Amino acid sequence: MQRTPIAFLGSLDAAEEERYRAALSAAMPEEVVRPFRMLTQAERAAVEIAIVANPDPSEVAQLPRLAWIQSLWAGVERLVRDLGPGAPPIVRLVDPELARTMAEAVLAWTYYLQRDMPAYRRQQETGLWRQRPYRAPADTTVGLLGLGALGKAAAQRLVQAGFRVAAWTRSAPAEDGSLAGVATAFGPDGLPDLLGRSDIVVCLLPLTAETHGLLDAGRLAAMKPGAALINVARGAIVVTDALIAALDTGHLEHAVLDVFETEPLPTASPLWRHPKITVLPHVTGPTNHGSAAAVVASNLRAYRETRRVPAAVDVARGY
Amino acid sequence: MQRTPIAFLGSLDAAEEERYRAALSAAMPEEVVRPFRMLTQAERAAVEIAIVANPDPSEVAQLPRLAWIQSLWAGVERLVRDLGPGAPPIVRLVDPELARTMAEAVLAWTYYLQRDMPAYRRQQETGLWRQRPYRAPADTTVGLLGLGALGKAAAQRLVQAGFRVAAWTRSAPAEDGSLAGVATAFGPDGLPDLLGRSDIVVCLLPLTAETHGLLDAGRLAAMKPGAALINVARGAIVVTDALIAALDTGHLEHAVLDVFETEPLPTASPLWRHPKITVLPHVTGPTNHGSAAAVVASNLRAYRETRRVPAAVDVARGY
Repeated sequence: MQRTPIAFLGSLDAAEEERYRAALSAAMPEEVVRPFRMLTQAERAAVEIAIVANPDPSEVAQLPRLAWIQSLWAGVERLVRDLGPGAPPIVRLVDPELARTMAEAVLAWTYYLQRDMPAYRRQQETGLWRQRPYRAPADTTVGLLGLGALGKAAAQRLVQAGFRVAAWTRSAPAEDGSLAGVATAFGPDGLPDLLGRSDIVVCLLPLTAETHGLLDAGRLAAMKPGAALINVARGAIVVTDALIAALDTGHLEHAVLDVFETEPLPTASPLWRHPKITVLPHVTGPTNHGSAAAVVASNLRAYRETRRVPAAVDVARGY
Repeated sequence: MQRTPIAFLGSLDAAEEERYRAALSAAMPEEVVRPFRMLTQAERAAVEIAIVANPDPSEVAQLPRLAWIQSLWAGVERLVRDLGPGAPPIVRLVDPELARTMAEAVLAWTYYLQRDMPAYRRQQETGLWRQRPYRAPADTTVGLLGLGALGKAAAQRLVQAGFRVAAWTRSAPAEDGSLAGVATAFGPDGLPDLLGRSDIVVCLLPLTAETHGLLDAGRLAAMKPGAALINVARGAIVVTDALIAALDTGHLEHAVLDVFETEPLPTASPLWRHPKITVLPHVTGPTNHGSAAAVVASNLRAYRETRRVPAAVDVARGY
């Protein structure tokens, strides 16, 4: 049987689109993946599956038989919003390689803060030789906000490195044995407690209506004096002005920000020049085209076999 | 039986001396540890054991019955040199907690380099948003110079984190099973090869006549283009001018230096202001007075029981 092609929709630059297409061809040579612009009218009418990366919603609307949409990214808040409530099921990319690189980055930035690298950097600028007190991992609590696949991978790496790990999640986590050594809190009542006892807070939450602006002036004030923040999730979860104020008053010691409300971060943003902020250009979980394509191929094969759509995003929750 | 006191000799500031004395008292309440200046003439004539931290050699010479000397530090090159060939056996501090903190720091600085933090810092200074290529630990070779207790602990942490680890040591390492996953090279012939294939070279060698100036212009030139150097051992192992030249030509990408020939690093040193050098004020292995005292207490008890001096430094080798 001749399968209908899979539509590829996205606003990627040509080189990046080609990297994805090459990786997808290699991972599933049995499928034809074709950019939307190259599909015939008949193919558009027949397409069942779309692989997307920031697609144009009007193009998605031209695929009437679409059974489901595979995102190439883990974060789908923009897709959910752009496609609206009538959209076909959306499948997030859950790539174990992405979980590995993000967990590695969380450990790397945690060490960067635990070992006082930003403060030593400032000392170097003024030629100051002074040893700061050392705090061992066993005496350092890292509080994770979010405990999905990425949060769990990060928790495991931190526990393995000897840190005290606490985690907060919106609802009670399933007891699946993957959280050994992690103190979990949940629900709105659990958040201030977690913020109050963490030396380093790591934001790994999806961006939803509920998490938008979650870390506002009040919640930043609930953080432990002298604590630090790592945001590797989405910029809009943290209220920028409130964060700057908390750093300026000395309540917080430092922030490592890898994500921003507008990316690339505008040149005029005060974040670039703040001495207590480390700005990273969204590098925590670099795309691995090969591993992403392997996950997509596995989802497609399962669908071809069973005709069941893979586990999709709960649009009401937003992730 | 009234034991003779243990002499405490060192040029520490009063607060630091007090921290050591309190920790030693707590770890071995059965012993009397007394600063040299407070020993009577009769006690000086009888003292068998000295605990030292940068002692005045003329004070050591006033203890004629000294059976052995316990250093509070792992690095004893200065002590060996100051006391000369006729000195009693010198016992280095081999503190597992020190091995842990140093291994942790080696992993922390390795992540700092693998994740391109110095380059992103420079990008932040100019407001440049640009993702640099990501290199996974599995594609990153970390080459350790030195494979003693500290080197082995570092190797294990790096292997656990997924890095490719190679190590060089002066003589063939004993096969004790602690080096699983580590490619070892040894002797003068093995050094250029290790330097040539390491993306990050970590210096963990003792300072001896043989390692003084070991990383000179020629050996730095043997390093892989674009590689980085971490020195957490002793400053004099690296030839400073040659390192600066290798960074300035672009042959090497960055250096993290925690140790220097003169400490504190003099204000006039060009290292402070070099954009490709991270200067740290000797913080890799912070002193843990409690764990150091526990190791010393264990050595002393073994000696009191057996009258055998603990394994001492080979003065000819220098460590």
